[in-house]
Amino acid sequence: MTLEDLFGGVYGRGGAAAATSGRAWLQAMLEVEAALVRACARERLVPAQAAATIAAACRVERFDLQAISAEGAEHATPVVPLVRALRRQVGEELARYVHLGATSQDIVDTAAMLVAKRASEFVVADARAAIGAAAGLAQDHRGTAMSGRTLLQQALPTTFGLRAAGWLVGLHEATVRLAEERERGLAVQMGGPVGARAPSVAEHVAAELGLVAPTLPWHTVRVRVAALAGALGTLAGVLAKIARDVTLLSQNEVEEVREGGSGRGGSTVMAHKRNPVAAVSVLACARRVPGLIATILACMEQEHERAAGAWQAEWGTMSDLLALTGSAASWGRDLLERLEIDRRRMRENLTRLAAAGVAEAAEPELHLGAASELIDRALAAASTA
Amino acid sequence: MTLEDLFGGVYGRGGAAAATSGRAWLQAMLEVEAALVRACARERLVPAQAAATIAAACRVERFDLQAISAEGAEHATPVVPLVRALRRQVGEELARYVHLGATSQDIVDTAAMLVAKRASEFVVADARAAIGAAAGLAQDHRGTAMSGRTLLQQALPTTFGLRAAGWLVGLHEATVRLAEERERGLAVQMGGPVGARAPSVAEHVAAELGLVAPTLPWHTVRVRVAALAGALGTLAGVLAKIARDVTLLSQNEVEEVREGGSGRGGSTVMAHKRNPVAAVSVLACARRVPGLIATILACMEQEHERAAGAWQAEWGTMSDLLALTGSAASWGRDLLERLEIDRRRMRENLTRLAAAGVAEAAEPELHLGAASELIDRALAAASTA
Amino acid sequence: MTLEDLFGGVYGRGGAAAATSGRAWLQAMLEVEAALVRACARERLVPAQAAATIAAACRVERFDLQAISAEGAEHATPVVPLVRALRRQVGEELARYVHLGATSQDIVDTAAMLVAKRASEFVVADARAAIGAAAGLAQDHRGTAMSGRTLLQQALPTTFGLRAAGWLVGLHEATVRLAEERERGLAVQMGGPVGARAPSVAEHVAAELGLVAPTLPWHTVRVRVAALAGALGTLAGVLAKIARDVTLLSQNEVEEVREGGSGRGGSTVMAHKRNPVAAVSVLACARRVPGLIATILACMEQEHERAAGAWQAEWGTMSDLLALTGSAASWGRDLLERLEIDRRRMRENLTRLAAAGVAEAAEPELHLGAASELIDRALAAASTA
Amino acid sequence: MTLEDLFGGVYGRGGAAAATSGRAWLQAMLEVEAALVRACARERLVPAQAAATIAAACRVERFDLQAISAEGAEHATPVVPLVRALRRQVGEELARYVHLGATSQDIVDTAAMLVAKRASEFVVADARAAIGAAAGLAQDHRGTAMSGRTLLQQALPTTFGLRAAGWLVGLHEATVRLAEERERGLAVQMGGPVGARAPSVAEHVAAELGLVAPTLPWHTVRVRVAALAGALGTLAGVLAKIARDVTLLSQNEVEEVREGGSGRGGSTVMAHKRNPVAAVSVLACARRVPGLIATILACMEQEHERAAGAWQAEWGTMSDLLALTGSAASWGRDLLERLEIDRRRMRENLTRLAAAGVAEAAEPELHLGAASELIDRALAAASTA
Repeated sequence: MTLEDLFGGVYGRGGAAAATSGRAWLQAMLEVEAALVRACARERLVPAQAAATIAAACRVERFDLQAISAEGAEHATPVVPLVRALRRQVGEELARYVHLGATSQDIVDTAAMLVAKRASEFVVADARAAIGAAAGLAQDHRGTAMSGRTLLQQALPTTFGLRAAGWLVGLHEATVRLAEERERGLAVQMGGPVGARAPSVAEHVAAELGLVAPTLPWHTVRVRVAALAGALGTLAGVLAKIARDVTLLSQNEVEEVREGGSGRGGSTVMAHKRNPVAAVSVLACARRVPGLIATILACMEQEHERAAGAWQAEWGTMSDLLALTGSAASWGRDLLERLEIDRRRMRENLTRLAAAGVAEAAEPELHLGAASELIDRALAAASTA
Repeated sequence: MTLEDLFGGVYGRGGAAAATSGRAWLQAMLEVEAALVRACARERLVPAQAAATIAAACRVERFDLQAISAEGAEHATPVVPLVRALRRQVGEELARYVHLGATSQDIVDTAAMLVAKRASEFVVADARAAIGAAAGLAQDHRGTAMSGRTLLQQALPTTFGLRAAGWLVGLHEATVRLAEERERGLAVQMGGPVGARAPSVAEHVAAELGLVAPTLPWHTVRVRVAALAGALGTLAGVLAKIARDVTLLSQNEVEEVREGGSGRGGSTVMAHKRNPVAAVSVLACARRVPGLIATILACMEQEHERAAGAWQAEWGTMSDLLALTGSAASWGRDLLERLEIDRRRMRENLTRLAAAGVAEAAEPELHLGAASELIDRALAAASTA
Repeated sequence: MTLEDLFGGVYGRGGAAAATSGRAWLQAMLEVEAALVRACARERLVPAQAAATIAAACRVERFDLQAISAEGAEHATPVVPLVRALRRQVGEELARYVHLGATSQDIVDTAAMLVAKRASEFVVADARAAIGAAAGLAQDHRGTAMSGRTLLQQALPTTFGLRAAGWLVGLHEATVRLAEERERGLAVQMGGPVGARAPSVAEHVAAELGLVAPTLPWHTVRVRVAALAGALGTLAGVLAKIARDVTLLSQNEVEEVREGGSGRGGSTVMAHKRNPVAAVSVLACARRVPGLIATILACMEQEHERAAGAWQAEWGTMSDLLALTGSAASWGRDLLERLEIDRRRMRENLTRLAAAGVAEAAEPELHLGAASELIDRALAAASTA
Repeated sequence: MTLEDLFGGVYGRGGAAAATSGRAWLQAMLEVEAALVRACARERLVPAQAAATIAAACRVERFDLQAISAEGAEHATPVVPLVRALRRQVGEELARYVHLGATSQDIVDTAAMLVAKRASEFVVADARAAIGAAAGLAQDHRGTAMSGRTLLQQALPTTFGLRAAGWLVGLHEATVRLAEERERGLAVQMGGPVGARAPSVAEHVAAELGLVAPTLPWHTVRVRVAALAGALGTLAGVLAKIARDVTLLSQNEVEEVREGGSGRGGSTVMAHKRNPVAAVSVLACARRVPGLIATILACMEQEHERAAGAWQAEWGTMSDLLALTGSAASWGRDLLERLEIDRRRMRENLTRLAAAGVAEAAEPELHLGAASELIDRALAAASTA
């Protein structure tokens, strides 16, 4: 998912991948340490000047990512070397004010929430753009008759507008759930070693970082993580549905839609081919998501006040989940914004159905009044909230 | 998950398993056909008397489950033989009013939502009882000092009340999400063959069955299914966390809690043993859940107006998911309602920490003022909504 | 997966589902108790006459499945009530010879292996029949030119025989792995309470039941379970690939193959439709498999000498995995045995490719010499082993 | 999993992570192009001198990873820009001999197999070292009595040697399966655009790269990928079992084992703590594995001659699977090689069992004769093959 990933173009499109990089995590952890020391100053646990000095030192470019990663392995958390390095930065005098009353999980979990917030902002933005594009297709193709297909067999006529309206509603409903979970779920963690710290510091940190102040520390009660994962997975699933439709409608034998984007999708050896690259990329990302969510859910079984393994498995899993859903959303937006519709072919393919004796296929417009009403409902629903 | 399942005692506790049986599904499908014909009567598509006669025939005891199952295989859906059997029941005259304008997926999906609604009602009820029990433990053990443990090592003192408050908040937050998804997610499906049916019939059916009327038919846009699955999985994960804690605290070397319930947990050969049966059963159920959710999410990739395979894979998966989460909730409630706490052992185990030089462990009460404040927050949060 | 399952026609085709029923499990557990007492007699731990009497009592029709299931819940295993009931059957005198030196997991695990052996025998038989059918298609359609398709786009000509040869090799390689794992993996468990029982009894039991005698008891070292699951999942995946191809080739716009089987695949409302029921059923089963395997693998993390939850989660998961893979194999066999090929349409669809300027498509036979050589390799490989 | 990953110390220990980096993939793809052109020269399709020149140009340092990744996104494969860049390197004259008759999937799949071979070599080497360490523990602690524990309750005495022998057999059996799958499963892909290329070129390439020559091209028949994934997952599961045992035996209240390694496992705030860092890291890696395998298996459903999405999802998934299993194996080896056993505490903990009335616990040696025999069996089995 980094620049070093040869497949980054497929898996890491959009802003989410960069927002989950090692550097982004390190930066988030430093912001948490800065917010913590400021919160402690407000609570008069740290002198204001000391807090300002420490917070000012929390700049990612001063720290050596690789050294922290390597040393972190000795502790199964990068926070130990990070705190050590930060203490060195601020000098012996101020060292004791760094990381005051916190446990390493406080820093990692709060940083994870910051990372999730930033990465998922890209996801939501791309999803909303995709919603706009789907709405446009629904509107524009309100009267574009095509064959509905069930179990991959032609069934009865429908309109492409109604199909696009289905995409629209799916994207909208999934995005609403994701946005909601971003609002209520992304909370600071500031419980101290066993989760018994008074909540006032957490509240200051939450206010500063724009995160929720939770009822309790949630070191081993991972509802927030699971719910975010579920919301991401639901969105990825809707994107996969759309991409699957596009690959099917793009088949040479169907040819009712075509991906836009000049120069894209060429083959190394077959000059006549035009591959549905965006749809394939959506699917490549989205298919990796359900397994990651199974991991997140299985890791909810966490021991006592801090887990031995299940929590540490979350870090990379959640990063991948954000990056892949983000890439799927970015590819999906691109797919919808550029999608080309072939009205003529849609109509031609309906003749097969008429030939099979389906009366409605001969004059589909006579039978599709409800489709337009349904599209209006979809447009209205997606424009609220 | 049926009576024929030798492991039904473990996997099928509580009401959810029975609510997802073959008979429950068949009953739900018949209720949908009845609601449909009544809705058609309201729309003046079917004479009122015909509708009444048909609806009256929709009684599960009149139908042969095994025959429908066997014949259904020829169509990859039990609706074909069900409709045929229902038409036979009502006679040639009325046959044409049966299943009017519907497609088989309309019946199965709406029935699935009814099944989900009923099964999840048991889940929520057991979860709420578990919340009550956890609140009681939090309240009663506000001052019961114990060793907090991180990475399975003794860390610093905490209270058992705070541990129970963590369980409480987790159960509460997961149940809120599940209840919410039950409210907004469980919708009728009444789109007809390609999803283009006017929404008025769906609205009547929704009103009658107590389900949501969706913006559009959602035959291949499975946000509702995925979101429900995610909410169930999150609850199952919290239950697993609690059960994991109980197995660990019940170890002979720790012995801080013990499952109640006389006669339970005996071994075939080791008379001295007392196994944590309820906790083990919660874990046996909950560990089966994440994989099922991965299946539901992977199956969101559905083709065109009706999927070839991905939809049909949902039926059994969602049944298992409801039954297993329900059994986990029922076992979890039982576990919490009967849990016995050993204050003395908790205190004894703290002496080890004191001996290791942890000053707080000697007089933990001096250091745990915030725990009580946190418990109050938890109790307050869980009592609202 | 039982007769009570309304969807049993889809999920429970072939013999594997019945071979994993509650009754089949109970029968297997009784056979294990019988084999155990005979082995103890050989080791002179039990009088020969007592062993014969006890073994004779181990008949499933004498036991009450529902009572054992219900009572089993109190112990998180049905073995406790089963042993109790068996002891009652044989009388006070002989009771002490029942279950001698065994632990409940010995009985459940050995029974699980018997169940797996029997159920997977159906799976392998259906897979082998599918292999035969695929070989026939490869042979018969050696010269049947069709369009190869990559990323769902027409690419270059191939032959249907080569496509079928690919299915053949996949089925063969997956079946070889499954057969191999059945041979070496399916072992008795007879370790006693903590796995320290001398291996001689296990060896007698293994010989009698036709299972492997393992190096050590494997109560919490689940390589055998995981490897079997992996082999089942690989076969299910190959079947899914074939079924996916059939759904795509059956599309009205492609129509190169059609499922055989008269009367099948009708729609409730669309008389002109013919749904690919067998392919859809393969996919419905196979899509449920990967999540189940994730569960089996995640459950390998088992504690000490017997797990608290992870082992108990295996029972239902492995039953479902066997039944679903078995159903997929049975449907897949049926699919391949009846598949109808439309040579004319294959040729027609190639003209599109020729029109797009692909020279090879005009006279595909000139370019497909290697296909025939490859088919011969496939037929030869699949006929060995 | 790269150097840019802040959690690389946890997830990327051992050689496998580096062997799956973007650079390692690029290098492997270039080796495949080199082997291909040499194979074509042997088949007299390319002049020997041209082949030598092209092969010499296939050096990773001459190519721009980031540019290839970025441009690859336009084609959903990095092979298009790679071939373009390689053609530029060798000049217009020789360009036509580059990538002759191959399709991009040939290059990616064969490279994937090379990457898998190299990465899994580290996995196997670490697993074998872990086997050696487990054998040493089994041997050394043949007579070290400890409490066996079932459902996390003390059960009957066993020996630590027997526990270690169980680990040994599990590691051995999983490694045998992995080694076997490396031998037979890792095959070249060289089928050309639709898999119809004559097998002679594939055979040359296989011989040169040390991979298997398959019966047929396997572009969409992914038995090899699935079987490798299953074998990796089985090994990861055994490692998780060992690590779980170590975390449990390391609890302060049990203290029967302790991780070695000075300086490791310190806490940011609790000086008295010593965290089981290696065990936690094994678990952090291993818990991420089952979900990845579910993805690989779900992705077996691939369309026609090349998949649209399911194949592309494999790349990152298989990389992660190799790296994480490798890291788990490396951490597991480290864990076993340094594990410290506390015989005295094991004996002390048995007194609790004796006090509970378990006669065997008073003089466990009298009851554990079979344990030593079982250990010998384990040592013998693990030393063969």
